[in-house]
Amino acid sequence: MTDISSFRSAMSLLAGAVNVITTDGPSGMAGFTATAVCSVTDQPPTLLVCMNRSSYAHKFFTGNQVLCVNVMGNASQEAPLIFADRNIRMADRFSRVKWSPLTTGSPVIEDALVSFDCRIAHTNDVGSHSIFMCEVEDIRCGDAQQASLVYFNRNYHHVGSLETH
Amino acid sequence: MTDISSFRSAMSLLAGAVNVITTDGPSGMAGFTATAVCSVTDQPPTLLVCMNRSSYAHKFFTGNQVLCVNVMGNASQEAPLIFADRNIRMADRFSRVKWSPLTTGSPVIEDALVSFDCRIAHTNDVGSHSIFMCEVEDIRCGDAQQASLVYFNRNYHHVGSLETH
Repeated sequence: MTDISSFRSAMSLLAGAVNVITTDGPSGMAGFTATAVCSVTDQPPTLLVCMNRSSYAHKFFTGNQVLCVNVMGNASQEAPLIFADRNIRMADRFSRVKWSPLTTGSPVIEDALVSFDCRIAHTNDVGSHSIFMCEVEDIRCGDAQQASLVYFNRNYHHVGSLETH
Repeated sequence: MTDISSFRSAMSLLAGAVNVITTDGPSGMAGFTATAVCSVTDQPPTLLVCMNRSSYAHKFFTGNQVLCVNVMGNASQEAPLIFADRNIRMADRFSRVKWSPLTTGSPVIEDALVSFDCRIAHTNDVGSHSIFMCEVEDIRCGDAQQASLVYFNRNYHHVGSLETH
């Protein structure tokens, strides 16, 4: 078995899209920044989100059983910083970005590259984390000319259309 | 529920690191190119890989119960093309890249940015795909100056060190 520090350091070299994951419902509104999102299957359209079970926001997601994966582009560079900042309260986070509900009621961030509005179909707990298997109920596409915001080697990078302009 | 075509089109905007996933063992050697890999937990160090159950290579992975996630950088641009090409037989794929076994016996590709040599701890089938929960047994880091190869908007992109040189 590899040690935790080597694992974390090596995982920083696995590039990932930067996403703001949001929820709203009976348990209240919450959101956090994450790269641990991936496609699962299109039968039915499903993606997964990994979330630390010890995080403050976890109970909002398990309570509401809905979430929105807002994929960040260069038009929304502040949102991932706001939703990664533990010193900013949940209500204050949402007052600092433009958002609206779509189908499930989860906040869809206006400037996102694309947003996947989902219902949590199953949850698998693995060690410290929950894996939410999410069926996509609705999609909102933003400005297709945006570059994607990617986290790699502990830095943010712009990938895509901006490079070629 | 969203339709499959809209889902696929929107998912092309979720950028992902390009990986070559390999295995070897009693069922034989196989490998394929995938972006559907993500971090799960560091207690114990675990990542997940999604794989289509109908793909030819699937039975090799379920048979061997080990795999290596080779994260691709700019030093290994041909490998992801070779391992995504259905017209190239498995044996021929491995004859066209440099590789060696590490701990589990799965092929570790020499030019990878970083390789995670794993044992499959659990498998969850969701719709058309298997999700392999993989405990990391060993890690090999490659050249830290490499850019990461990222797939976004149906194109390959270089992210990281190359941009700043």
